[in-house]
Amino acid sequence: MNKNSSNIMALAPNTSNKRETVCIFGTGDFGRALGQKMIQSGYPIVFGSRSPQTSNLIPKEAEVLSHTEAAQKAAIIIIAIQRQHYDFLTPLAEILRGKVLVDVSNNLKINQYPESNAEYLAQLVPGAKVVKAFNTVSAWALQSGTLDASRQVFVCGDDMEAKQMVMDIVRALGLTPLDQGSLLAAQEIENYPLQLFPMWKFPIFLSLGLTAFFFFYCLIRDVIYSYVYENKDYSFFIAISIPNRICPVVALILLALVYLPGVLAAIIQLYRGTKYSRFPDWLDKWMLCRKQLGLVALAFAFLHVFYTLIIPIRYYVRWRTEDGIISKALNNKTDPFNNTNGWLSDSYLALGILGFFFFVLLGITSLPSVSNSVNWREFRFVQSKLGYLTLILCTAHTLVYGGNRFLSPSSYRWYLPNAYMLSLIIPFIVLILKFVLIFPCLDRQLTQIRQGWERNPQYSEQSNYIINKSAV
Amino acid sequence: MNKNSSNIMALAPNTSNKRETVCIFGTGDFGRALGQKMIQSGYPIVFGSRSPQTSNLIPKEAEVLSHTEAAQKAAIIIIAIQRQHYDFLTPLAEILRGKVLVDVSNNLKINQYPESNAEYLAQLVPGAKVVKAFNTVSAWALQSGTLDASRQVFVCGDDMEAKQMVMDIVRALGLTPLDQGSLLAAQEIENYPLQLFPMWKFPIFLSLGLTAFFFFYCLIRDVIYSYVYENKDYSFFIAISIPNRICPVVALILLALVYLPGVLAAIIQLYRGTKYSRFPDWLDKWMLCRKQLGLVALAFAFLHVFYTLIIPIRYYVRWRTEDGIISKALNNKTDPFNNTNGWLSDSYLALGILGFFFFVLLGITSLPSVSNSVNWREFRFVQSKLGYLTLILCTAHTLVYGGNRFLSPSSYRWYLPNAYMLSLIIPFIVLILKFVLIFPCLDRQLTQIRQGWERNPQYSEQSNYIINKSAV
Amino acid sequence: MNKNSSNIMALAPNTSNKRETVCIFGTGDFGRALGQKMIQSGYPIVFGSRSPQTSNLIPKEAEVLSHTEAAQKAAIIIIAIQRQHYDFLTPLAEILRGKVLVDVSNNLKINQYPESNAEYLAQLVPGAKVVKAFNTVSAWALQSGTLDASRQVFVCGDDMEAKQMVMDIVRALGLTPLDQGSLLAAQEIENYPLQLFPMWKFPIFLSLGLTAFFFFYCLIRDVIYSYVYENKDYSFFIAISIPNRICPVVALILLALVYLPGVLAAIIQLYRGTKYSRFPDWLDKWMLCRKQLGLVALAFAFLHVFYTLIIPIRYYVRWRTEDGIISKALNNKTDPFNNTNGWLSDSYLALGILGFFFFVLLGITSLPSVSNSVNWREFRFVQSKLGYLTLILCTAHTLVYGGNRFLSPSSYRWYLPNAYMLSLIIPFIVLILKFVLIFPCLDRQLTQIRQGWERNPQYSEQSNYIINKSAV
Repeated sequence: MNKNSSNIMALAPNTSNKRETVCIFGTGDFGRALGQKMIQSGYPIVFGSRSPQTSNLIPKEAEVLSHTEAAQKAAIIIIAIQRQHYDFLTPLAEILRGKVLVDVSNNLKINQYPESNAEYLAQLVPGAKVVKAFNTVSAWALQSGTLDASRQVFVCGDDMEAKQMVMDIVRALGLTPLDQGSLLAAQEIENYPLQLFPMWKFPIFLSLGLTAFFFFYCLIRDVIYSYVYENKDYSFFIAISIPNRICPVVALILLALVYLPGVLAAIIQLYRGTKYSRFPDWLDKWMLCRKQLGLVALAFAFLHVFYTLIIPIRYYVRWRTEDGIISKALNNKTDPFNNTNGWLSDSYLALGILGFFFFVLLGITSLPSVSNSVNWREFRFVQSKLGYLTLILCTAHTLVYGGNRFLSPSSYRWYLPNAYMLSLIIPFIVLILKFVLIFPCLDRQLTQIRQGWERNPQYSEQSNYIINKSAV
Repeated sequence: MNKNSSNIMALAPNTSNKRETVCIFGTGDFGRALGQKMIQSGYPIVFGSRSPQTSNLIPKEAEVLSHTEAAQKAAIIIIAIQRQHYDFLTPLAEILRGKVLVDVSNNLKINQYPESNAEYLAQLVPGAKVVKAFNTVSAWALQSGTLDASRQVFVCGDDMEAKQMVMDIVRALGLTPLDQGSLLAAQEIENYPLQLFPMWKFPIFLSLGLTAFFFFYCLIRDVIYSYVYENKDYSFFIAISIPNRICPVVALILLALVYLPGVLAAIIQLYRGTKYSRFPDWLDKWMLCRKQLGLVALAFAFLHVFYTLIIPIRYYVRWRTEDGIISKALNNKTDPFNNTNGWLSDSYLALGILGFFFFVLLGITSLPSVSNSVNWREFRFVQSKLGYLTLILCTAHTLVYGGNRFLSPSSYRWYLPNAYMLSLIIPFIVLILKFVLIFPCLDRQLTQIRQGWERNPQYSEQSNYIINKSAV
Repeated sequence: MNKNSSNIMALAPNTSNKRETVCIFGTGDFGRALGQKMIQSGYPIVFGSRSPQTSNLIPKEAEVLSHTEAAQKAAIIIIAIQRQHYDFLTPLAEILRGKVLVDVSNNLKINQYPESNAEYLAQLVPGAKVVKAFNTVSAWALQSGTLDASRQVFVCGDDMEAKQMVMDIVRALGLTPLDQGSLLAAQEIENYPLQLFPMWKFPIFLSLGLTAFFFFYCLIRDVIYSYVYENKDYSFFIAISIPNRICPVVALILLALVYLPGVLAAIIQLYRGTKYSRFPDWLDKWMLCRKQLGLVALAFAFLHVFYTLIIPIRYYVRWRTEDGIISKALNNKTDPFNNTNGWLSDSYLALGILGFFFFVLLGITSLPSVSNSVNWREFRFVQSKLGYLTLILCTAHTLVYGGNRFLSPSSYRWYLPNAYMLSLIIPFIVLILKFVLIFPCLDRQLTQIRQGWERNPQYSEQSNYIINKSAV
């Protein structure tokens, strides 16, 4: 669906160029790709190279000179060279004085060096204005024009004017510059392309841990117990029956964990009587990955839905149904219809469907393009009101599913309750705490605190400027 | 999935600042949050406060002065104070002459005051250039950097240059300014953050009304009728059976209502012989919420699909199947396979699946990021061609589902037809009218009218500049 | 969900206008719509018209003059006239000297004229600076403010300064300008709005071809064979049974075809020992539509899932089940539970669900707004690692579904194997080749080549600057 913008890009503009010459040090893959792209956008390019004559992959429109000659031709010099070879710049310090040096380098590991490459460059060439940029863009994306991954270019630097010049180039290349402040930000900008879903780590490890725990729990209850006491081999439960016990349980627990930190934060604020006091670190981190927790929960709910829907197609289920009917027919016996069972069965299914529906709605509104097009009040309405509605529906679904089995002794094999009973603990805690917090007396006080009122103003002197993250 | 941009933000740039000092009046939550964010982006900040000495929550890098002193230090003054306290600005009028005043205030209710806060501010300080901005951004979002809800900042003002200065600040903060024109737009900008899905109200209320109507309709036909005549308690139908009658019926009606206004508009244009004539107001409003109507219809279709898929898992259905088989086995009776029933059953299911598939496709293409990446021709192709295909498939699904039951008297309990029969009325009207409109003679004339041709040109003199909304 | 930005747009700014006057030649639909929009954004507008007095649909705020008078009032002239009437500009050449002419025209067919309209305009008025812009925006979208389809305005031109002036207007109108380089790009920009999913053509035609082939294949095997040998009429299989054989088969083949070109490209690179050598054209094109191939495959997988889930609701399936049970009951016969069948049935269902889950995940991450918010490493992780996982799961699903039927002679009617057996060929080829390529010796060499190393450097002399598209 996305149009490839490079398709509609003329290769070589025969223009009355007004753009300033840019110099690129380094004729490697990235330097050449960036040079080619800048030539297309109307910039005259000079490459600086140790061995100017051998570089036959370089775009024809560009000049290749020695480092010294090339640097003299431009006000902006892009350093497309690895950090290990930055030393060659030291003798050039005099020529580079006052020039804008653009550091585009990346490292192989997060926090590989004590200082960022850009800061190291600034130390090596003290007279130059160093700007960090382009490190999040790949050579391949520049060449092919398929910038699917990201059009955002993080830019930082201490000199406003130099930064502005670099941001203009970024814009001319059809990319979006994002000003990240001073050169201190370079370390984080250099770490960014090395990250692999950092916000997702905790939710995914947590869910894998829960999955493993409940897998062995159900294995003991459903497979091993049957094998020991009834001598029946239910090992094939591992494929569907047990996953379909794990998924809803993990989904419900994760969903409750999305709303638990907000409730805890409210309690802390009520207890302290102020919002100008930093939350414990674990709570801060927990709050920041609530969206990811919710989406992992949705993934488990999705699996649960499809594991449930294929139940009637399973050979085991079809065999059991058939066997039951035939034995009843042979014994000339029919069960009467049990109205209570009819109600219970239909209710838990209906609650599950509605819960899943609102869960999917929450997931859709967390898509970046959707959440960008709603205002703050609408976003909070969806994420908070609809979120609690989903939690209530899913908890009720589990409760009604349990039905009257909670007290039946056959539900406790080896004194282990059914997994779904365990899954109800955290949702119950969240819902009870939330119910208490919306009592008018507490709610009024909490609203006051969040608007800046303080019970004991001395708290605020401990910390200078603190963030209230419980707003959503 | 979204990277938190503030994570890669250096806290305090030690820069050779070239940015102009900005003054903020008011040291409340929002003023401090905005100040902190602007300091991070390299702006020197002066706070103007009634009591400069006590403000210990203010960022350390900022100066706190009296209003008069602070105002003298900057060309741009952000008024982060509630409208009720604007009076204190009157004595400062002389100092504020020629300065840019940025009104960031919001109200508690839509249209709370006769004039917008920004216009009121402009009246109070006639010599200043008032710009409305930042009111859609929350203090919390500024502080935490999690601008999930919206990065868009609506800006309006009468002075182009002042507006440009404010838009530069917005961009420097990593937000997207949207120029909304003159200060007359301030009222609507102030109402914006108070809105709660205004375009969704009509579709949601309409669907709730239809749901309520069909709920009681089905309750009478399916539960009360059975109770009265057969003395059977089918009250548990409320959980699944009745919702699964309501959902498809409401979905189909809403989907037809998406395409009805376009057809009506075409008829009006054909009748009037011009497109330069305003449509009735109700038609205009209806047209503007077609997308929302369609998405609500999709939600009902989604519920219908899942209510249908869990049918074989329901206790009632399993009991009925079992009971039927056993009684047949005991009576030594088997039904022969009925080929017509095989065809009907498979056809309505296949039509339903295909209809749902195209409906989901329509839903996906209405996601903002998807619809932004297609061109106008593609968007119209999907929304119009695929939309009608979906409507045809869903109508056919309902028709075939009815099968030969339309004429069967058992379908009319208390003379009430099945709900699905009622749901076919509007789709039939839409499809018949559309079918008539694509006849070459009418289609050609309509195309001419939409390209600007007029049968009776006097119509156009009534109204100066009118919009043809039926293009899609 | 998207806020209609024109709702919060003041109609007529009473501003201290600093914006420059813009002239529009042509008072047709598009000229008027653009004029109205520019007036709202604060631009004084002069229309140039052949018959200035009769244009009563023109916004009141605009002046209407003759072409000559209007052109003299502005530095920028928007030519909102069809290409056929461009001749009238020749006599005006003297007045237009040095002015910026904005060509907004579109054609009716792709590549309708040998040169683009903008280049033709530049030839007609040699002294003017021609800029192509606004052709992707519809008059209707400008008027109604519902810019759902696209806010992107492609801009190209040979004069940097003129282009910059036009891009400023684009931004002021709330649209996003995209600089496409010199006027050579105009041809492609003019073709853009006429395109109808060009990247989707190959995947859709391929899938329709495969669908047709497998339809007749299954028709012969499942309907005609039964009719000939068993004299049974299974024609109703056309509605669901046969589609549910076609969909998974086509989905799996298309999914494998997404990963085949990457594998082929790696083999070519290994064989040639360099990446600086252009791939065959067909491979280049194939690589560029991988995303579309994958999404079409997902659509077929989606249909397969829903066709499968409604199996137990089908009349034919219910009849067959019932019939089987009754005949067993009457014959007093019960089947024992077959543990192998239990394992096979549950495994293939579980594999299918997991495969579908990861497939949906891949689909979600290819939404533009999601793929924009991940970095390059994350994008490659999802599209490559998760993609292969999906392919492995789906292939295993098909294999286990086949189970022990591969060798059974009853699977070969008229010597034709089951359709799913055919579908396994390409996935097997891809997975085996990929397995060979991740062997350390090959993988190391491939990584070196992709980092720029060459086995026989003479290759690189053949071509100047070539793109390595196999990076993902």
